[in-house]
Amino acid sequence: MPVAGDLTHLDANGHAVMVDVAGKPVTERQAVARGLVTMRPETLGLILSGGMKKGDVLAVARIAGIMAAKKTSDLIPLCHPLALSSVRVELTPSGDGSGIEIEARVGTTAQTGVEMEALTAVSVCALTLYDMCKAVDRDMTVSHVRLIHKSGGRSGPYQRAEAPAHASE
Amino acid sequence: MPVAGDLTHLDANGHAVMVDVAGKPVTERQAVARGLVTMRPETLGLILSGGMKKGDVLAVARIAGIMAAKKTSDLIPLCHPLALSSVRVELTPSGDGSGIEIEARVGTTAQTGVEMEALTAVSVCALTLYDMCKAVDRDMTVSHVRLIHKSGGRSGPYQRAEAPAHASE
Amino acid sequence: MPVAGDLTHLDANGHAVMVDVAGKPVTERQAVARGLVTMRPETLGLILSGGMKKGDVLAVARIAGIMAAKKTSDLIPLCHPLALSSVRVELTPSGDGSGIEIEARVGTTAQTGVEMEALTAVSVCALTLYDMCKAVDRDMTVSHVRLIHKSGGRSGPYQRAEAPAHASE
Amino acid sequence: MPVAGDLTHLDANGHAVMVDVAGKPVTERQAVARGLVTMRPETLGLILSGGMKKGDVLAVARIAGIMAAKKTSDLIPLCHPLALSSVRVELTPSGDGSGIEIEARVGTTAQTGVEMEALTAVSVCALTLYDMCKAVDRDMTVSHVRLIHKSGGRSGPYQRAEAPAHASE
Amino acid sequence: MPVAGDLTHLDANGHAVMVDVAGKPVTERQAVARGLVTMRPETLGLILSGGMKKGDVLAVARIAGIMAAKKTSDLIPLCHPLALSSVRVELTPSGDGSGIEIEARVGTTAQTGVEMEALTAVSVCALTLYDMCKAVDRDMTVSHVRLIHKSGGRSGPYQRAEAPAHASE
Amino acid sequence: MPVAGDLTHLDANGHAVMVDVAGKPVTERQAVARGLVTMRPETLGLILSGGMKKGDVLAVARIAGIMAAKKTSDLIPLCHPLALSSVRVELTPSGDGSGIEIEARVGTTAQTGVEMEALTAVSVCALTLYDMCKAVDRDMTVSHVRLIHKSGGRSGPYQRAEAPAHASE
Repeated sequence: MPVAGDLTHLDANGHAVMVDVAGKPVTERQAVARGLVTMRPETLGLILSGGMKKGDVLAVARIAGIMAAKKTSDLIPLCHPLALSSVRVELTPSGDGSGIEIEARVGTTAQTGVEMEALTAVSVCALTLYDMCKAVDRDMTVSHVRLIHKSGGRSGPYQRAEAPAHASE
Repeated sequence: MPVAGDLTHLDANGHAVMVDVAGKPVTERQAVARGLVTMRPETLGLILSGGMKKGDVLAVARIAGIMAAKKTSDLIPLCHPLALSSVRVELTPSGDGSGIEIEARVGTTAQTGVEMEALTAVSVCALTLYDMCKAVDRDMTVSHVRLIHKSGGRSGPYQRAEAPAHASE
Repeated sequence: MPVAGDLTHLDANGHAVMVDVAGKPVTERQAVARGLVTMRPETLGLILSGGMKKGDVLAVARIAGIMAAKKTSDLIPLCHPLALSSVRVELTPSGDGSGIEIEARVGTTAQTGVEMEALTAVSVCALTLYDMCKAVDRDMTVSHVRLIHKSGGRSGPYQRAEAPAHASE
Repeated sequence: MPVAGDLTHLDANGHAVMVDVAGKPVTERQAVARGLVTMRPETLGLILSGGMKKGDVLAVARIAGIMAAKKTSDLIPLCHPLALSSVRVELTPSGDGSGIEIEARVGTTAQTGVEMEALTAVSVCALTLYDMCKAVDRDMTVSHVRLIHKSGGRSGPYQRAEAPAHASE
Repeated sequence: MPVAGDLTHLDANGHAVMVDVAGKPVTERQAVARGLVTMRPETLGLILSGGMKKGDVLAVARIAGIMAAKKTSDLIPLCHPLALSSVRVELTPSGDGSGIEIEARVGTTAQTGVEMEALTAVSVCALTLYDMCKAVDRDMTVSHVRLIHKSGGRSGPYQRAEAPAHASE
Repeated sequence: MPVAGDLTHLDANGHAVMVDVAGKPVTERQAVARGLVTMRPETLGLILSGGMKKGDVLAVARIAGIMAAKKTSDLIPLCHPLALSSVRVELTPSGDGSGIEIEARVGTTAQTGVEMEALTAVSVCALTLYDMCKAVDRDMTVSHVRLIHKSGGRSGPYQRAEAPAHASE
């Protein structure tokens, strides 16, 4: 698929602008993003074992992701501030035991989409996992942070094409 | 290298705490983190071409990374607020043309390290690139966000072991 | 009155979510909250005496409450960010001279209510009073922070049932 | 104990100032604050029952309290920004089943104390409980938010005098 | 033109309030503000010379202005939080070589205007220029920060009356 | 006085960096900044008249300035986050009745100065005055925002050279 058009966040002089969305319709929009934190099996074991005692690791990471979605326009310079209508972040051990998969789903009713909110939720959730586990595993890596799906905007729905194995992430 | 010890951010009941660093010495600390935004060659071309006109894309991403380092303790729930003494973020086209590599270097003189600040700078810099280019390439992916080096704390220096090819990232 | 239903901010797995309000109508909504800061009579005297010279204590507390209402979704993890249409915070010496009563009224036109904004305004207003007077009275206490009234949502209006004496607070 | 002196946060004209602490020694400081959220027994039952599934309610409130401690100087107009060295928030069902008691312990090594940080952590933790349970119990009330203990400053340690029953809170 | 009416941000008791806009229509609104940073010719030369190498000074200032527009309601106590639909900040050397002129254009579709957002963008953009150049020129001054134009509200359009020379700023 | 040296906030490639201050001594530092909000005499009259009833206008502006000083490193991209030890903002009608003069004094004990904090306090205080009076006078202008004095850093004290008339501002 060819790259069409030009970078919308720059004006004719190459200067950064917050794009004008005043003419766009207010529609219900959704975005789903995913990412993966790879870690040693022992680290994953520490997070998952212990039943309720370890519950806070996943809860802290989940909440950090939700709260970060609300801070997206503070972090990403040209992002529009938005009133989000829903945020949901889920963490699941990856099928192959290599780490934890993160999925964020964000919704809004607005003139612009929430891809950045979903990607920010995934990224900050991943960093929070890193923070809580770094004393035992500094080699953890955040990977595959990507948009999976978006709907509701003028540009039509987007669904990432992924091989089944990859898609299972 | 075996995983030693336990998760420091949880107390004996498994409850999240901001770890007490009052007894740790105030020392000069540094951390370096890196990550990669993969994209289509045409997207990379749009960012790099055009000389000065496109200058703002890299500048915006760089500044977003620097500012995010300062917001780390707002984003990561159990991170200590810190007075940073330096932040530097660099973006470089990757050797193989697959995208843009990001490196953040953060310094402080404090009782705790700045790994999370460096990783947060890389992540938000990467998300900002995504934001500015998403209209032409929604398939971009943020990968290999990782700690490369840290020094200055009680736990001694850390240097990530990477194969040369990988290290060149 | 029996507790009906379940905790809406948890999904079927007990995981925190920001509840989806996309299907709720946009309506005009109001909430009123109140609280009480109890203090020694001498402390109350210091705040109220002196005419204009002491004016700033109440003004600072009032403004802190108004500004806090705008930060509610930053503070309360699962709260939706909202565009508030009005915020009003009033401080009154309590009838029995035991302290200062705080009332916050918040309005919005949105898909979700502003109870948390009103309660946050009261709480931060109270903490600000504490901060300014703590050098003379560390025993001050914040009490009876509660929702008095809300209107405008799908769940219908709420009016707290209070005995007249209590209601005068 | 008589109220001594005057309001330190006002200058000779009654104008608000952020008090100058440049001449104060940098010392290790601690503060403990407590508060109570009263609720119906059924509401308390919903929070506590269900084992792991309900774990997120208490975890979300705990984390909200910890994060709020870091935002104190953003919320309280005349509070000094501080680098906190520890924050700990605990929630316990009150002995008489009337609700949930919250205790926050905050530490720093600085020129000024952390009473406001501890009180802010308690208040926001309480508001977060309210938020998550308000759909089932709008009558919940936040009470007895108070300083229990502080140490480390020039003014000497403070220990709140409480009757045993009250102290058990 | 006579000053008509009274200060809208104070109630009948002279107390600050966030004015109620619930009854105002949602309309498309625009505001343009301008300001000037005066500096020595050598300072201006340093900013403008060097081609791409110096590009970041103007880019950083531009982005700081855009991001500040989004923080307006955090900074100005009685400002309503708004979802902005566009922000654009331009920097131009003034015709007489005395400094850099800044213009901010902000748009929204809301119940209240964006004058404060435009003025805040100009002010923070100017401060950012000062920050980056202060090591070579501490005498720089920010002047003529003013509203040029607004449209879209109930009070009708506003166009500042300026002499041509002044207007050219 | 000639402009010496180069822009410190850019590296050898012209890229923005947060300058490394790790090698600088921790010293007590002070900065004083001033600015002027010009307005119609009737507007000034509205602010000053009415005794206590109007007290909140000046109080709100003063507090906005103090709180903004604490947000400086959030607003100015390359500013270091700092623990401020004092902030004081004063508003005075200018001698000639043309408006309100603002002076901010900020102190810290740190490795870098607080000029930007003082200038930010003045600017946001001025914008807050504008906000509260804009309904009666949209022509108000913020001018002469400038550094008056700084002390405590390696570069030695700075005192702005001003003619007495100007200095009286």
